Amino acid sequence: MSGFPEWSPQQRIVEKRVLEKIEESFRLHGFINIETCGVESYERLVKKGDGKEIYRLSKAGSGEENLGLHFDLTLPLARYVLDRKGDLVFPFRRFQIQKVWRGERPQGGRYREFYQADIDIVAKGEMPAHFEYEVPLAMCHTLKSLSPLGLGTFSMHINNRKLSEGFYRALGIEDVEETLRRIDKLDKLGAQKTRQILEQVAGAKGADACLDLAQIKEKDPDVLAEKLESLRAKWGVEGPSAERDLMREGEEDAKAVLRALLRSGFEGACIDCAIARGLDYYTGCVYETFLDEDPALGSICSGGRYENLISTPKQAFPGVGMSIGVSRLLSHLFSKVKADRISPAWALITVWSEEERWRSDEAARILRERGIACEVSPSAAKLGSQIKRADRLSIPYVWFISSDGGEVKDIRTGEQKKADPATWEPDPKYAADIIVRE
Amino acid sequence: MSGFPEWSPQQRIVEKRVLEKIEESFRLHGFINIETCGVESYERLVKKGDGKEIYRLSKAGSGEENLGLHFDLTLPLARYVLDRKGDLVFPFRRFQIQKVWRGERPQGGRYREFYQADIDIVAKGEMPAHFEYEVPLAMCHTLKSLSPLGLGTFSMHINNRKLSEGFYRALGIEDVEETLRRIDKLDKLGAQKTRQILEQVAGAKGADACLDLAQIKEKDPDVLAEKLESLRAKWGVEGPSAERDLMREGEEDAKAVLRALLRSGFEGACIDCAIARGLDYYTGCVYETFLDEDPALGSICSGGRYENLISTPKQAFPGVGMSIGVSRLLSHLFSKVKADRISPAWALITVWSEEERWRSDEAARILRERGIACEVSPSAAKLGSQIKRADRLSIPYVWFISSDGGEVKDIRTGEQKKADPATWEPDPKYAADIIVRE
Repeated sequence: MSGFPEWSPQQRIVEKRVLEKIEESFRLHGFINIETCGVESYERLVKKGDGKEIYRLSKAGSGEENLGLHFDLTLPLARYVLDRKGDLVFPFRRFQIQKVWRGERPQGGRYREFYQADIDIVAKGEMPAHFEYEVPLAMCHTLKSLSPLGLGTFSMHINNRKLSEGFYRALGIEDVEETLRRIDKLDKLGAQKTRQILEQVAGAKGADACLDLAQIKEKDPDVLAEKLESLRAKWGVEGPSAERDLMREGEEDAKAVLRALLRSGFEGACIDCAIARGLDYYTGCVYETFLDEDPALGSICSGGRYENLISTPKQAFPGVGMSIGVSRLLSHLFSKVKADRISPAWALITVWSEEERWRSDEAARILRERGIACEVSPSAAKLGSQIKRADRLSIPYVWFISSDGGEVKDIRTGEQKKADPATWEPDPKYAADIIVRE
Repeated sequence: MSGFPEWSPQQRIVEKRVLEKIEESFRLHGFINIETCGVESYERLVKKGDGKEIYRLSKAGSGEENLGLHFDLTLPLARYVLDRKGDLVFPFRRFQIQKVWRGERPQGGRYREFYQADIDIVAKGEMPAHFEYEVPLAMCHTLKSLSPLGLGTFSMHINNRKLSEGFYRALGIEDVEETLRRIDKLDKLGAQKTRQILEQVAGAKGADACLDLAQIKEKDPDVLAEKLESLRAKWGVEGPSAERDLMREGEEDAKAVLRALLRSGFEGACIDCAIARGLDYYTGCVYETFLDEDPALGSICSGGRYENLISTPKQAFPGVGMSIGVSRLLSHLFSKVKADRISPAWALITVWSEEERWRSDEAARILRERGIACEVSPSAAKLGSQIKRADRLSIPYVWFISSDGGEVKDIRTGEQKKADPATWEPDPKYAADIIVRE
């Protein structure tokens, strides 16, 4: 089934560890876990997503249902928050790690079923700007915590919708959303083609100016300010105006993110005025994150601030969120690390004969009671073939149980000694079950 | 969305803990984790399941797909094993904890989307009978490990298909599968109605004899042997025959399970000749498990041995597996335990003013680096209202950070003292985040 990835038991160990590290970091940052069901109202999905990619459910006999599989975790969050707005404590910091489904054409790093790991902070009423740095800060920490699992350095690219919108409006461009959508294609289409499609909405001068803004990529907040100043001068929009104020506001919010990341020790962030994000619900900072050694993999962690995604006409629920594309990350990590264990068992308990299997069962019971994972040999075959099973499953120890006691052998070193299941401890050096490939 | 359960953040803490305890126990017993995708070939699903309950996928534009959502984790296991039979080490002990979907009418304890937690041992070629006790033994340990989470005592009911089949055949009943399917309804329909529907396939005498067998429920293996002996005498099938041998074989396998459970200290098991299991792929022992204080909830953990579910014409892959209906269990546990925490944060770091927020951010960074979860207050509101947030989120500590140091207050005891984020440790007594209701 193309696009529906399934991992080997060893790859699953890596996936599980990645998910656990992400979750641990989300908790460290005070995010609360929720899980939503896999389905949403089909109408809502179609309204917010790409209809061609949405899986709708039907049942023999009752036909099409008003249900589809969720394609992200933001839409479910919106429903969850509105369903429980009377019970949740706002600002609501939530994390959610689940599979989502998109019927895209499968290609490198893109799947039809994949894990997303999201954090969002949803406020009631007004949302303070500092959340726009808290969320990317938590994400930088989270991604950094994956470096023992082979994740290299990464760059977070930050932009702000107000910055782009203010500039576009100052240039006289009316359809800001469509301009953003076209700028978003710059990466895929290249400058020349993007200029052509921009010209249709922004005019010739507008297209050139938009592309000029999109070229700005800067790590230093002060240099950024200078570059934007000369950009405005070049295109004749430097005078005071409401549009210019909006642009400045976006600039300040974006720089605040950059500064907070720098304060926290992250130097891999930049303001990248080409980042537009396809989704039209973003209203403030937007973020994308690329692996330095494999930028072609695409963004591995993206998001932004939104005002109206959750809000109702009666009540505002602005928020900011980011999402890690875990399965895409994994497709990269599998080439960097591998699992050193297959079975979680520390020991295989051999069996002398089926009549004496109960002795091995009893030793296993005692070990498990003490929290030591083990398995009893499936057959009373020759010892060599029992040990071979331990070896093939990367189980580090083999136990030999007899009526007068037991012996345990470290099959990696060959060392064998008398031992008692009631007191024996495995060497913790075998606990590390993921190793970095050379 | 009826039948698609979603829990509050506090209920999710209980669910997460239950899933973790189950997983921990599965690993202790040497089971290897895999995860399969949520979809399977629609034809395969329909062939093995109830077509009316299976969700099929479609996409606007491309119409119905040859895909449906899996309704259990056994069918995906079968595909996974055949896909990777060259790479897996047999007997393959796997566990899998995932959501499954069934378009049933939602009712108490039954959902349309729910978690299953499965273990299976799949052999290549022949499968030794001892796996038929290893799997229920692991499940008994697993369920017992949930008692700190409020799970009371439970009874595991064991039967064996060969025992029933041997008896039915000895009585001259030809359609054994249909007879089993009808006996399976005994619980729902009662003896009188079941007798009526049995009579159609087994005749009047056969129906009475089948019901007689189904009455046998016995904890003592030796007493069971006597009861079966007198049953055979009563219905005139005590003479030696192939059917009788089959019945005896099933009896021995079932008793071996009971004995292994007793050896391991479980006294809550019995042979229950009424257990039939609706699925026709079972060939040996079958299991169902009931909560002693709420048997009406239905079986919380079921399964059995199968010969042909995974096997191909060329190669036999017999197996034995059991599945915990986690969501059903949860619907019971939510009345027994509740979460004592909402936020994972140990501490809320207050903020004096937005200008000084960076100090609180810095304290949070230091705490998190040391593995201590915290959140920085969302606003520089009056201290009372900042503390109120900690209280509503059940965060046990509040930090006050100023230019000359910090103080930390235990908001449950009121105790407040000078402290340094670089060395402070929360009291581990607040780590227990799930408490048993009184």
